[in-house]
Amino acid sequence: MSASHFQREILEQPQVLQRLLENERLAVEEIAGTIRSRAPRFIVLAARGTSDNAARYGQYLFGAANGLPVALATPSLFTLYEKPPRLQGALVMAISQSGQSPDILAVIEEGRRQGALTLAITNDADSPLARAAERVIFLHAGQERSIAATKTYTASLLAVAMLSTALAEEGFRALESLPALMSEVVASAPNILGAATQYRDIGACAVISRGYNYATAFEIALKLKELAYIVAEPYSSADFVHGPMAMVERGFPVLAVVPDACVAEELVDLLRRLRERGARLVVIANRDDALALAQTPLPLPAGVPEWLSPLLAVVPGQLFTLGLIEAKGLDPDRPRGLRKVTLTH
Amino acid sequence: MSASHFQREILEQPQVLQRLLENERLAVEEIAGTIRSRAPRFIVLAARGTSDNAARYGQYLFGAANGLPVALATPSLFTLYEKPPRLQGALVMAISQSGQSPDILAVIEEGRRQGALTLAITNDADSPLARAAERVIFLHAGQERSIAATKTYTASLLAVAMLSTALAEEGFRALESLPALMSEVVASAPNILGAATQYRDIGACAVISRGYNYATAFEIALKLKELAYIVAEPYSSADFVHGPMAMVERGFPVLAVVPDACVAEELVDLLRRLRERGARLVVIANRDDALALAQTPLPLPAGVPEWLSPLLAVVPGQLFTLGLIEAKGLDPDRPRGLRKVTLTH
Repeated sequence: MSASHFQREILEQPQVLQRLLENERLAVEEIAGTIRSRAPRFIVLAARGTSDNAARYGQYLFGAANGLPVALATPSLFTLYEKPPRLQGALVMAISQSGQSPDILAVIEEGRRQGALTLAITNDADSPLARAAERVIFLHAGQERSIAATKTYTASLLAVAMLSTALAEEGFRALESLPALMSEVVASAPNILGAATQYRDIGACAVISRGYNYATAFEIALKLKELAYIVAEPYSSADFVHGPMAMVERGFPVLAVVPDACVAEELVDLLRRLRERGARLVVIANRDDALALAQTPLPLPAGVPEWLSPLLAVVPGQLFTLGLIEAKGLDPDRPRGLRKVTLTH
Repeated sequence: MSASHFQREILEQPQVLQRLLENERLAVEEIAGTIRSRAPRFIVLAARGTSDNAARYGQYLFGAANGLPVALATPSLFTLYEKPPRLQGALVMAISQSGQSPDILAVIEEGRRQGALTLAITNDADSPLARAAERVIFLHAGQERSIAATKTYTASLLAVAMLSTALAEEGFRALESLPALMSEVVASAPNILGAATQYRDIGACAVISRGYNYATAFEIALKLKELAYIVAEPYSSADFVHGPMAMVERGFPVLAVVPDACVAEELVDLLRRLRERGARLVVIANRDDALALAQTPLPLPAGVPEWLSPLLAVVPGQLFTLGLIEAKGLDPDRPRGLRKVTLTH
């Protein structure tokens, strides 16, 4: 089978990160200066689908590194209900690879109308969203032909990480190692594709992490749903034990993302409980204790700070999805019922 | 089978709403006065599990009716990461029936430390959370013995609705009809329990709504997971068409909540597409066009304003879950692997 757009774009991610780092650095530093001068109290962030998972990463990173609470926007208040909240004191941000979605555009337009600082992160610098926002971070990811987003997701995470770093007036050094680390992860593709074939018959699973990688759990679950047609549910480990844990029976597959960080203890403890209940564990981690609990361990490179780990940790999930698709004989470039650009109001 | 706590507490909800309306009205009006005098720019809202779904309702209602953007808190930033965001200008709220969860408590404690106005909504006026918050709205729901929450969920929604109404300085008249309307919904229990038995063999489903009832979709999905062990995924209709739609195949069950409001057109359009793909539709609605598309229509009383419909629309979902549990021979008071109070950090 010749390589799909989906596969090619997964493998392209090291170059995409490199290009974004090189080309957008000055723009991001300049935008960060403008934001600091306007001193927002909080961020309102609008996004849909894969971009919404990048927004979830921003929720943790802007909160922890920049002290800014992040409200994920409820676009229907701006469109269908026509009752937008007051945005004074907010930085209003949108993430959209296409920059086309009318409801996301409406949030930015309302932000401008109310005099808030507006910022779009998009892969189309000529899109309606880019034209509506006061400032734009351009992803430089090249055209995304796959219907399911991969390279624009990791590029959006990097754009968020660059902005957070610039807001904190820290250098970009920590970010510079990402393209090489991404190449390492991408090089493990054959192993991951092989491991995925054992799961070709699963109909449902849970995808679990916590903290920065809560976003990774959502994004991997979305890929599994839209391409492999698996009912994959994302959870924070804290929410999972508040109820959904009950649905785990013997053989139930759970994919977990465990970074080497303060959230690991709780996640490893949950993996032990799941193992006792007979769950089948796929674990993406750079910690031996977490990997040792897995039937299918998917190791990550060591030495990545947790706040950057979501850029790498999603990739084994993308590849795992690709492996499942191939094992099931599905075409990743023609998921049933989906279009590349979805216009929601 | 003798009535379970779960069943008894579902049926108790009209009285619980009546008690809360009568007993907490003055306290809520007084709290609203304090909030208005402090003029917060935005709300940070912390909750877990069922209470998090009440928070999601608050996100729409405080946004639309009071112009306040709502950031759902990321508790791990306050606990595991020890990097809480700045809370100046925020109203910091927590919703927790038990008032025991350490991570939710940590958000309120940090709010006080930073000098923000703090408010707890809880069913235990003597809990650590109630003692930590500057102001408390007490739910008066009586002890909740069922592990899966029902009456404290609708009581939390009513507390949010009362607070929003008082903040807008509107009278409570619209709220006063709720107990009687709730009695009407509860009276339809035999029909709903009967209808649910046809779904006893489903393993997964999607639960869809939009706007105010996005919260209802989450809460019904949570009940189905924790008690009936069904992999039930909640979605806004706008997010669903951005990918997860692909997992719907012939016979896939979709439960939708369609209020008679501006979001209905989009939801009915989605139901038509799902129907064409052969989905099995369970529809909770007070609109004929939506009910007519369902194999299993679950009608709601007419004449309920949309912003209050979540208090009623969740109840057919609670009863549907009860019907499934009974059909599967499960005990709703002993869901596997769950405790009533879950302490997460």
